[in-house]
Amino acid sequence: MNDFYTQKGYDLRNHNDLSRAMEDYLEMICRTANTNEYARVNAIAAQLNVTPSSASKMASKLREKGFVDFEPYGILRPTEKGWETGRYLLRRHEVLHRFFCLVNQSENELELVEQIEHYINRKTIDNIEKLMERLEEAKRK
Amino acid sequence: MNDFYTQKGYDLRNHNDLSRAMEDYLEMICRTANTNEYARVNAIAAQLNVTPSSASKMASKLREKGFVDFEPYGILRPTEKGWETGRYLLRRHEVLHRFFCLVNQSENELELVEQIEHYINRKTIDNIEKLMERLEEAKRK
Repeated sequence: MNDFYTQKGYDLRNHNDLSRAMEDYLEMICRTANTNEYARVNAIAAQLNVTPSSASKMASKLREKGFVDFEPYGILRPTEKGWETGRYLLRRHEVLHRFFCLVNQSENELELVEQIEHYINRKTIDNIEKLMERLEEAKRK
Repeated sequence: MNDFYTQKGYDLRNHNDLSRAMEDYLEMICRTANTNEYARVNAIAAQLNVTPSSASKMASKLREKGFVDFEPYGILRPTEKGWETGRYLLRRHEVLHRFFCLVNQSENELELVEQIEHYINRKTIDNIEKLMERLEEAKRK
């Protein structure tokens, strides 16, 4: 029984390098930079429904931690370290979105996925991917 | 693109009757009361790794919202409304724990489940249960 904590308790126990909000920003920066090579602070703010000043503050934190370069005119470019983490965040998002769409036979499970993705570890993402492969294989038979 | 929010953004948009912390407490109170008919504030505090004064404060909030009766000597009894919600919280927990143990071929996915359960809606819980039935059936064949 004593392994239960409240959610605040879990937050205090897990000191991750990236907070959940930072993950959201880095994921969106890499999603945009995937097609455009860079992202703009103002566009990221609009995409995440936050104010430009919040986005700018968070971009500075990501720069301090070595995840993005923050250039003049609000241009953000993921560093190598940023891409490495960002690619995983995008894959985690994509795997979970595909899984919950499959489970609920729907086309949009964005809100669900955005809220839980931060807590799902790599092992579970890999295993959910394998489960989906098995399900698709079974369907084909 | 504009359906993305940061986690804080989602929290602000969704005004649930019960906060995530309240869900944790009510779930644990009902888990205990399931066998003992009632739960004690001090025991709930120990089980959730929080201080007795935090547990007492949260129990008062749950009483205000009509989920528990708070009797002398720290005795908590879920009301009918409390049981109704609590039974669902226990089922949600159990379904998700069974599912992630199945996915990861492990016996303990408590930390993962405790962190994501608050965000998973009833439709998804029902559909995960159906998916597990199908998987178990396929195994038997």
